[in-house]
Amino acid sequence: MLFNRIANSFSVYYGGGIRLKRTFSSVLLSSLSNNIRIHRCYAIFNIKRTKIFNPTVNFHRNVSTTVNADDKIIAIKEVTRYMVDCMIKTGTSKDHAQQLADVLVAADIRGHYSHGLNRLDMYVRDIQKGVCMKDGIPKILKEHAATAWVDGNNLLGPVVGNFCMDIAIKKAKQAGVGWVVAKGSNHFGIAGWYSIRAMKEGLLGMAFTNTSPIMYPTRSSTAALGTNPLTLAAKAKNDTFILDMATTTAAIGKVELAARKEQTVPDTWGVKKDGCVSNDPTEILSGGGLLPLGGTELTGGYKGYGLGALVEIVCGILGGAQWGPHVRQWMSTAVVANLGQCFIAVNLDGFAPDFENRLQEFIDSMRGLKPVDNKRVLVAGDPEKEHTALVEKYGGIPYHPNQVTHAEELAKTLGVQAMTVKSTV
Amino acid sequence: MLFNRIANSFSVYYGGGIRLKRTFSSVLLSSLSNNIRIHRCYAIFNIKRTKIFNPTVNFHRNVSTTVNADDKIIAIKEVTRYMVDCMIKTGTSKDHAQQLADVLVAADIRGHYSHGLNRLDMYVRDIQKGVCMKDGIPKILKEHAATAWVDGNNLLGPVVGNFCMDIAIKKAKQAGVGWVVAKGSNHFGIAGWYSIRAMKEGLLGMAFTNTSPIMYPTRSSTAALGTNPLTLAAKAKNDTFILDMATTTAAIGKVELAARKEQTVPDTWGVKKDGCVSNDPTEILSGGGLLPLGGTELTGGYKGYGLGALVEIVCGILGGAQWGPHVRQWMSTAVVANLGQCFIAVNLDGFAPDFENRLQEFIDSMRGLKPVDNKRVLVAGDPEKEHTALVEKYGGIPYHPNQVTHAEELAKTLGVQAMTVKSTV
Repeated sequence: MLFNRIANSFSVYYGGGIRLKRTFSSVLLSSLSNNIRIHRCYAIFNIKRTKIFNPTVNFHRNVSTTVNADDKIIAIKEVTRYMVDCMIKTGTSKDHAQQLADVLVAADIRGHYSHGLNRLDMYVRDIQKGVCMKDGIPKILKEHAATAWVDGNNLLGPVVGNFCMDIAIKKAKQAGVGWVVAKGSNHFGIAGWYSIRAMKEGLLGMAFTNTSPIMYPTRSSTAALGTNPLTLAAKAKNDTFILDMATTTAAIGKVELAARKEQTVPDTWGVKKDGCVSNDPTEILSGGGLLPLGGTELTGGYKGYGLGALVEIVCGILGGAQWGPHVRQWMSTAVVANLGQCFIAVNLDGFAPDFENRLQEFIDSMRGLKPVDNKRVLVAGDPEKEHTALVEKYGGIPYHPNQVTHAEELAKTLGVQAMTVKSTV
Repeated sequence: MLFNRIANSFSVYYGGGIRLKRTFSSVLLSSLSNNIRIHRCYAIFNIKRTKIFNPTVNFHRNVSTTVNADDKIIAIKEVTRYMVDCMIKTGTSKDHAQQLADVLVAADIRGHYSHGLNRLDMYVRDIQKGVCMKDGIPKILKEHAATAWVDGNNLLGPVVGNFCMDIAIKKAKQAGVGWVVAKGSNHFGIAGWYSIRAMKEGLLGMAFTNTSPIMYPTRSSTAALGTNPLTLAAKAKNDTFILDMATTTAAIGKVELAARKEQTVPDTWGVKKDGCVSNDPTEILSGGGLLPLGGTELTGGYKGYGLGALVEIVCGILGGAQWGPHVRQWMSTAVVANLGQCFIAVNLDGFAPDFENRLQEFIDSMRGLKPVDNKRVLVAGDPEKEHTALVEKYGGIPYHPNQVTHAEELAKTLGVQAMTVKSTV
């Protein structure tokens, strides 16, 4: 039980591990989240390659688009009911519980299992430990035609995020752009939720958040930035473009998966404890950390580091929240998170007419590119669309049995009704 | 002479080759810019590594921070005078010539030699061929409190860029944000010029542009996006943070340099003609192209591809300009460029007070990270600061002799006074 409990709480860092890691032990992670000082070297070509990790088989872009034979299907409504019940039991207001559940369920529907049901007990714990508020209203501290600065008042991340994006949407409709930055926020789930919220209003949506330090800036021997995700969502005529990405090369979950399979990982994913780039996932997980998108300096990692810093500047620095190495360690409840987050909505009416048709042409054009092999060219959000179709096909979300077991444990602990499983795959 | 002429015009694609490539033949490039259809495979580990390219010695982040013994120093004022004279000789209005020269000189001062004097003859050719206008005014097509849509009227890129960013700055001061998108633009030099323009007004500045197709989207056998750079500039108390990066892993210039040195390049840089990821720079340059930031799918290249698409969406798609594979081939003068560009300014007063101090702390914190070896941790813009200090030290810009010779040729051809060399290093 403890194993399952831990296994369900360890899938961390944006774009994380999803379904394939749900049964993997988190023991390795605990050492990771300690972020101890390590050294890194750039002897990246002095490596042994035995078994090469190939995550693209059914692990494309962190989104699973297949189900396992023993997965359990649970209706969306039932998952939501369960999550709301759990949060209400902690004393969280019903409205806030609902807002959180909506984001978590959306993550699971889109195949980002690391950010869904899997993450519920983290929010439960934050509320129980008193480091996140059960009820209240974020406060607008300052406002101009196109901007707002918000104090999230330490409420649940989705409550702060929805509040901020709704202001951004309103301002975008009036002034052309809404740019809202929050301090005093908490983990807000998938960043894409907020950009999609703007997209559904016919706008271009963007969102950013800082996160707990796990990424090693280029040349640094210490983790000092988070996976700092960014997202952009836009509606095309018959389609959508939804980019939702961390600014690290890989998610911890991918490293964990490789470790479980005893495979090596590419040079650009992470560093080990003694400071060298490592191809051994167990070394990366034992006190090491992630490299910024690109990898080392030689392979353009300074650009990923620059992007992570960009996200930090529009979140923590602009918002006056915690930033960089000062953000609390992952899963810590020692202090409040005080995350900084940025939400942007842009009114398409302000620019060239016919945006939706043009974006559709762009999407079609990319998807129509001749592939190098039998894998078709995708655009951002396509794997999530595939997973959403899976959920529709099964009439519910397919969960790994261990995840369902863990949810039953949590239900028992909190005294709420466990989820009713609709069927198995 | 022809060699020098070509050599000076081939340093292409954002973040390109700079000083070390200025003497390298462009023959390879011409095949590259044809963008012929090629195939790519992902057999990235089946490679031979003999000599490994290590560009960090004096080729950090595309910016040279050393000089060569035979470099010629030319005063900034004199370089500017020469550039203005050349452009005026083509019939370009004096004001437009000056705006272009200011951007090109700024690039050379910052060490981005690929985008400075080196690029002058491209602008000359565009004007001479009649595919770029000599004079006129960009037009605001639509306007809201925080946005504007601009027709660049096919004027020189810097003229369009300055026009747009000035509107963005004005709107940011009034509404909190200015978000301006142009169609009908041309190559605008270093993107950082425009974000710095906003930064100098005490704002957060961002800029984006689409470019000629050279990047292969993940899984694609064809180039379909440009290097699509993005930039963010912000002033700290005693310092600046200036991120200015292409969304490809490497610049063509770096591949060219490796070819010249007969060295291999990392797996994440580019692809060759037959479609496989290549470590041989001559293969990449002979009909291949660049990989998005991250490299292949396995190493997160789909994120770089997503970022390139993001830039395309806020530029070509939002602006109603050319986009993706429809942007004209590099150096082509067959049709007008009709580039799309995006300029954003954000008023810091709209958010948490004390931004400049906080950003200074962030910068100091990153620079203060314990390095893995003797290379100190940098923040975005630091290599450019180093090069600017070099220019100050020498009282002018150090140019490779070949570049000076080429400038003399161009001066002769156009009938303008050649640059007076102040001294040699």
